[in-house]
Amino acid sequence: MTVDPVPAALEAVLAEARALRGGEVATYIPELATADPDALGIAIVGVRGNVWQAGDSTAPFTIQSVSKPFVYALALEHLGVDAVLERVGVEPSGEPFNAISLDDSGRPMNPMINAGAIVVASLVPGDVVRDGLALFAGHSLEVDDAVFRSELETGHRNRALAHLALAAGVLGTSVDTATEDYFRQCSLVVSALDVATMAATVANAGFNPITGERVVSEQVARWTLAVMASCGMYDASGEWLARVGLPAKSGVGGGIVAVDPGLFGVGTFSPPLDERGNSMRGKAMLESLSAANGLHAFAHPDYKF
Amino acid sequence: MTVDPVPAALEAVLAEARALRGGEVATYIPELATADPDALGIAIVGVRGNVWQAGDSTAPFTIQSVSKPFVYALALEHLGVDAVLERVGVEPSGEPFNAISLDDSGRPMNPMINAGAIVVASLVPGDVVRDGLALFAGHSLEVDDAVFRSELETGHRNRALAHLALAAGVLGTSVDTATEDYFRQCSLVVSALDVATMAATVANAGFNPITGERVVSEQVARWTLAVMASCGMYDASGEWLARVGLPAKSGVGGGIVAVDPGLFGVGTFSPPLDERGNSMRGKAMLESLSAANGLHAFAHPDYKF
Amino acid sequence: MTVDPVPAALEAVLAEARALRGGEVATYIPELATADPDALGIAIVGVRGNVWQAGDSTAPFTIQSVSKPFVYALALEHLGVDAVLERVGVEPSGEPFNAISLDDSGRPMNPMINAGAIVVASLVPGDVVRDGLALFAGHSLEVDDAVFRSELETGHRNRALAHLALAAGVLGTSVDTATEDYFRQCSLVVSALDVATMAATVANAGFNPITGERVVSEQVARWTLAVMASCGMYDASGEWLARVGLPAKSGVGGGIVAVDPGLFGVGTFSPPLDERGNSMRGKAMLESLSAANGLHAFAHPDYKF
Amino acid sequence: MTVDPVPAALEAVLAEARALRGGEVATYIPELATADPDALGIAIVGVRGNVWQAGDSTAPFTIQSVSKPFVYALALEHLGVDAVLERVGVEPSGEPFNAISLDDSGRPMNPMINAGAIVVASLVPGDVVRDGLALFAGHSLEVDDAVFRSELETGHRNRALAHLALAAGVLGTSVDTATEDYFRQCSLVVSALDVATMAATVANAGFNPITGERVVSEQVARWTLAVMASCGMYDASGEWLARVGLPAKSGVGGGIVAVDPGLFGVGTFSPPLDERGNSMRGKAMLESLSAANGLHAFAHPDYKF
Repeated sequence: MTVDPVPAALEAVLAEARALRGGEVATYIPELATADPDALGIAIVGVRGNVWQAGDSTAPFTIQSVSKPFVYALALEHLGVDAVLERVGVEPSGEPFNAISLDDSGRPMNPMINAGAIVVASLVPGDVVRDGLALFAGHSLEVDDAVFRSELETGHRNRALAHLALAAGVLGTSVDTATEDYFRQCSLVVSALDVATMAATVANAGFNPITGERVVSEQVARWTLAVMASCGMYDASGEWLARVGLPAKSGVGGGIVAVDPGLFGVGTFSPPLDERGNSMRGKAMLESLSAANGLHAFAHPDYKF
Repeated sequence: MTVDPVPAALEAVLAEARALRGGEVATYIPELATADPDALGIAIVGVRGNVWQAGDSTAPFTIQSVSKPFVYALALEHLGVDAVLERVGVEPSGEPFNAISLDDSGRPMNPMINAGAIVVASLVPGDVVRDGLALFAGHSLEVDDAVFRSELETGHRNRALAHLALAAGVLGTSVDTATEDYFRQCSLVVSALDVATMAATVANAGFNPITGERVVSEQVARWTLAVMASCGMYDASGEWLARVGLPAKSGVGGGIVAVDPGLFGVGTFSPPLDERGNSMRGKAMLESLSAANGLHAFAHPDYKF
Repeated sequence: MTVDPVPAALEAVLAEARALRGGEVATYIPELATADPDALGIAIVGVRGNVWQAGDSTAPFTIQSVSKPFVYALALEHLGVDAVLERVGVEPSGEPFNAISLDDSGRPMNPMINAGAIVVASLVPGDVVRDGLALFAGHSLEVDDAVFRSELETGHRNRALAHLALAAGVLGTSVDTATEDYFRQCSLVVSALDVATMAATVANAGFNPITGERVVSEQVARWTLAVMASCGMYDASGEWLARVGLPAKSGVGGGIVAVDPGLFGVGTFSPPLDERGNSMRGKAMLESLSAANGLHAFAHPDYKF
Repeated sequence: MTVDPVPAALEAVLAEARALRGGEVATYIPELATADPDALGIAIVGVRGNVWQAGDSTAPFTIQSVSKPFVYALALEHLGVDAVLERVGVEPSGEPFNAISLDDSGRPMNPMINAGAIVVASLVPGDVVRDGLALFAGHSLEVDDAVFRSELETGHRNRALAHLALAAGVLGTSVDTATEDYFRQCSLVVSALDVATMAATVANAGFNPITGERVVSEQVARWTLAVMASCGMYDASGEWLARVGLPAKSGVGGGIVAVDPGLFGVGTFSPPLDERGNSMRGKAMLESLSAANGLHAFAHPDYKF
């Protein structure tokens, strides 16, 4: 009889992360500042539908930028790679998440920074996003109204990015519609388990491994993973890929997702952020998990677990 | 009796590439301008030592920037990741190969741009580089003296980058030594088969699959592959990873290498370059090979060949 | 009996300018594209109220960016230098008129680029601007409604700049109010004679030399002139100051103003613009006038006319 | 009998400046770090040869960047404006003194930043510079050998700028010659009285008001003054022109010169520098002198002293 080693591995990384100090809960809107800094959870969903979880893996938080790769995948599926690529590039910008980062033709550099994510949000009808994200997660996701309204009131810089995109001719809707859709997408309530399921769907060639439903094509899944690998961790993406080796995306709500293609998706939750806006303990858990288990995308197969 | 499908696949991509028009042979030094624009070759070396080749796979050319990941790997092996990371970052710069691209602390952004490669060259003794590259290729490599002298005479911008690195305290030697070593490294004569063998060594966890000799550790190999994936194709790295999905590196001598970790290394040779300095037909051959055979790093295993 | 040499001088520069070919009438809104490319006028208003004019010196055009130094002067007068300086810098940006050009604290670099002018417009109540510009010109100025509405509909980039200013905490009103006020200010109808009078008011220590009314203090006038000298001609400001030596400001409506402190203001009108958005013939007239008459701010007095 | 008010004015600004605290003596080479932080002097040389001085007006210091406008003037005189303009622009860069700041064609943005000053130094033979500076000062200037050798040993960044200029095809000599000439020029020993005399020569249409010798033409003098006005105080040039209103240039040796065209040159000396590398007390003395006496270039004549 074999023993499943994953539960013990998850408890180990959780214990290690719990001991870490530092980081700051996001405060740019009051609703985020109330997050429990000690909340800590992790979930793994395998491509055959196995689920492992530890800690606060079902605690709710707002998805924020973790939504970006999934809405990008929906845009690719809905419009095709070429149509999206005309409006949003796929090159890392070497700059922070809220940088203006437009290329010479006025396109945002990539869909993982705010400028690009707003354009992506403008390319897909709101109901396609809502239904698509529900398919990724396996159930419909609710909007946190207080966060949504707060974003609407204070998101001046994001609104500026939308106006710049409109001026460059790459915005698909009005500025108001694009930013509202984007703020709504960021305000969706998820858990570590939810985002792990979403990530597992991308790992599983676009099929949700729990419901079995197809959300996006394998072509879209691999393209999305490549863009997460290049650009997902903002101006620390290169070191993340070298050190952890898993396509990933973080959000200021405290969530991170990472994907091991063909194997599993993982989601983490811990609100305190490092100075680049990534969950400090979430990063530590994923680094530790990768190092201990040979999850690196470019590891030789003999060195993988 | 099974038939090996690879020879036919190589002939097909070669024929397809031969039909392509456009691109310009590099002319910044006279020696490069004499390259035969019609030369065209490809070689694949598998991790078990199988070799496939087609066209001008043994025609000589200077390695130029294709040397960068291999000398970087030698520096990592020689000094350790942390010591190298203190002096050269691993973040894509979003800028062309000859950009100045220093981060706030004066470190070059990554080792695949000239600024970073010059610092890397300064960190490893010349004989370690010479011996290490010979191990990667399976035989010692000769310097093309005319190219080397030409680079020495005209490399003002590279010399400027070395002075900036010295000013930032990250250069390991004098400016003259660093730039001479770098120009010598770029002037080494290789063939598509040579660089395929070098790439296969990285694919094979650091062991040369033909000689069986260990060149670098598996840890160094995976780190190097991640940096090639993020930064190897300059300001087109993101789209390359999304479209082709193989860590790669090009040089203005007309060569490109790409790696499928755990499987094989591939080398191409065709002198005409696109506007970003990448071999136009080499790119096309690798794109075609990847698309036809599911070689994408982030493809689901069921969708791989 | 002395003969006034100015009329002949004006006719000479006019004739010289009429012979010039090239330049393009602004077309970013349809209303500007209808301007007569052959219209050509110049007016000088001395600090003692003398007026010289030649050509289409009373032909109407929209003031556009020529309004920027005058509204800036009104803001300085209304709020004081320090309060304005907290929100808009006075450093040349080395970038084009519509550049984003915010400094580290989010302040626009200077009030002569759009980003700064929009913030300035937000700092002064609309009626103060309207009344102040009327005092500068000696009569009230009308809005060209078609131009105003067109700017409102197409000014996405300017709206983006306002949102960025709001995000940086330096905008005095809502984005809608600031941009509307700014577009209205740009749409005011003036003639070369009007803007010459406005410029003469700044030349005359803040007193309109025709009406005798005080508009701004001498302190404000000199500060405004210095900012025009540093930043008035966008990314060609340095060469303008070296070559022509007069603080100046141009607008895409075809107008330019220049000031010789203590002596006179000059206004020119000719719609075709050079590639930097400055009136091609207007620049030529001012260069010629300065060179022929020793008007350079840094000329030795013995070398002045 | 009239009383000369200038001596009392100079003593007043000196007393005011002496009370100021803060600033740091330059330490990037050891020789500068030994400067007496309490040394404080000022000198004014009028265009008719009158001299006023107070404090340590004859104390020696190295001229450093205060040399830039004078060597630039010699280059303009020697080669003509157009030939110099082809190689060094005249636009403010909005960046610090040691910024790379090359325009699209590879020209340094202006001659007041290091990149531009090195190119300027390469355009004029060493003996022309030596003899020209002697004419400006009224006597030959000695090189401080310790400072010169120290600059030679540590000036890596300046050497990088020279290599970039060479790569752009705008350097007039070899990198070694250009940087040596530049470091020698910066290492010349002067006093506040010397630089005031040099400045007075520019104020006096190119004639040294003490020796009566012509150094440069009036055309060159006015062009040089305009470039000092636009670019002389690095990234604080705009505010300096608005607040003080005198073309000026500072050096890390503690000197500043300023010019009132047609009236006088002024030189100050005080080693402690502010965070932008300008002499803290020197700036204060010039601001105070300008404000108290209406020296602003764009002041109305009735408001001048």
